[in-house]
Amino acid sequence: MKDSDYSKFNKFYEQQRAIIDKKLANALKKRKPESLYGPSSYILESCGKRLRPLLVILSAMAVGAEPQKVLNASLSVEMLHNFTLVHDDIMDNADLRRGNLTLHKKYNLNTAILAGDSLLAVAYEYLLKDCNINAQQVISSFTNGLVKVCEGQSLDTDFERKANVSLEEYIDMISKKTAALLQTCCEIGAYLGNGKNNDIKSLSDYGKHLGIAFQIQDDLLDITADKAEFGKRIGGDLLEGKKTFLFIVALDRATGKDKEDLLKVIKNKGIRSNQIEKYKRLYEKLGVLDEAKKAIIIRTENALRSIDNLSDKSRIEIFYWLADLLIKRNK
Amino acid sequence: MKDSDYSKFNKFYEQQRAIIDKKLANALKKRKPESLYGPSSYILESCGKRLRPLLVILSAMAVGAEPQKVLNASLSVEMLHNFTLVHDDIMDNADLRRGNLTLHKKYNLNTAILAGDSLLAVAYEYLLKDCNINAQQVISSFTNGLVKVCEGQSLDTDFERKANVSLEEYIDMISKKTAALLQTCCEIGAYLGNGKNNDIKSLSDYGKHLGIAFQIQDDLLDITADKAEFGKRIGGDLLEGKKTFLFIVALDRATGKDKEDLLKVIKNKGIRSNQIEKYKRLYEKLGVLDEAKKAIIIRTENALRSIDNLSDKSRIEIFYWLADLLIKRNK
Repeated sequence: MKDSDYSKFNKFYEQQRAIIDKKLANALKKRKPESLYGPSSYILESCGKRLRPLLVILSAMAVGAEPQKVLNASLSVEMLHNFTLVHDDIMDNADLRRGNLTLHKKYNLNTAILAGDSLLAVAYEYLLKDCNINAQQVISSFTNGLVKVCEGQSLDTDFERKANVSLEEYIDMISKKTAALLQTCCEIGAYLGNGKNNDIKSLSDYGKHLGIAFQIQDDLLDITADKAEFGKRIGGDLLEGKKTFLFIVALDRATGKDKEDLLKVIKNKGIRSNQIEKYKRLYEKLGVLDEAKKAIIIRTENALRSIDNLSDKSRIEIFYWLADLLIKRNK
Repeated sequence: MKDSDYSKFNKFYEQQRAIIDKKLANALKKRKPESLYGPSSYILESCGKRLRPLLVILSAMAVGAEPQKVLNASLSVEMLHNFTLVHDDIMDNADLRRGNLTLHKKYNLNTAILAGDSLLAVAYEYLLKDCNINAQQVISSFTNGLVKVCEGQSLDTDFERKANVSLEEYIDMISKKTAALLQTCCEIGAYLGNGKNNDIKSLSDYGKHLGIAFQIQDDLLDITADKAEFGKRIGGDLLEGKKTFLFIVALDRATGKDKEDLLKVIKNKGIRSNQIEKYKRLYEKLGVLDEAKKAIIIRTENALRSIDNLSDKSRIEIFYWLADLLIKRNK
């Protein structure tokens, strides 16, 4: 890809993100009651990558539609995503999200539960605004993404109680918890853009594979990221004893004392913060970080192979750019 | 209305309820993961009145459609309703629901949050199954009901911190928290039955007025019901210091020592269980229970006036029967 394409795509992303940020910041601000929409707006205003809205927009454009045709739909997937963040943060008892206090820490438990619910409700409201075509398929895809996210979150919680989690079970979990929604974003954009079936399929598969790569990357960043940029606590997954890609591969490879040390993480349901460096070194020694990087590349290549099938070849490059952006991200 | 009609309608209700109970009991039972759908199924299996599914079915029939055309939609509104119950019970820290442990008491907080979310997700899934006609309107009405329920719950929570709540504010709150969903049920049935606009409006208004009557009745039953039949703690609203119809009217009417006693409920955020009888007597003395009964009758009459406008007059009587049933209920 040419440098000029990169900079063109980056510029487009920044433009779209600015539009999305502004729309999201205003979406709930003036709605009543303020006790409900103030907190919901708080999380929507904490600017994330807006990857999911971008996928909706790019998918619509890939089948020849204008971004503004799917703007509300793109906001709706971000609302759905933020609904899951609010409820997941409660369940994980997390303090920080994107460098800010989580909603239940900023307000309280009840407010956070209800604000989460309202984000999902308004998400459907926004989605419906753009459903001038293929409404049934769009809402089915959205609902399927939602169902899968709930199932994935439940499987993730199950892992806490399971002694052994296989890599296969892990991939199934992140396919639901993370990848399904990215797949939904691509499908929605393609449906609303009135894409042909094979293009919808290509985009849907791109979203799925990219989602899996994205989540493994997330697991990797948990231990390799820089705190200031990451916005979350580094090593949080280890502190909580989460069975991430890294941990599962490490446990599979380790022997002797190393294995004992890893089993201790399960037994003690996490480690202490002064042990993070030790476990990071163990991951490095076992080649786990490299294995994660390899898995990310393989899944990304799958995504790119899917997108190569798009009928309009002039629309493919930006999906390469996006995959590259996600692999290189540091937060 | 003739006694034979009453018994015919009662029989129809019991038949429909048996179908709904069975479908709901099986809807989630075999879905995976069991850690998610087991708890969601637990609440769906605790048989309620199934008023909301019944409204969907009756509204479809009122415009000439067969009940089986809206069976999935009727299940979906009950799922949405149960989603709100699960999350509301967390927020209210309630122990019992329909005589059983609430979901968060039976399992735990995280499970209850996620089970609630999944009920809502699957509700949309079921609704979509029946959306062969007027999909956009049906899903919009459903989403609007959901948005309103969240807003109503938030307003209800706001009341806890407000010293003064007017009857007007209270009616606005229950219009959203309770009546909006009943209105949605009627609208969905009418849309899916391909009803004419004026019939949809008549049914929608019936649902709204009935919903307001229903909630005031709920407030009344909190203090007048029999514990064994009610399935919840009697006087629960007083114990929690809730600003119900009864409390708001009482506070408005009371003077002197009576007023002081009522203000104490607000100040102490509720009363002790050995004070319930005292406050019940105060309500009686102030004529609050009679005032509630009067309000229920007026709202019910509004509902019946709306339903009188149905084009097919042969379909009206069962809506009279239903209103009568709700006024006379004891749980």
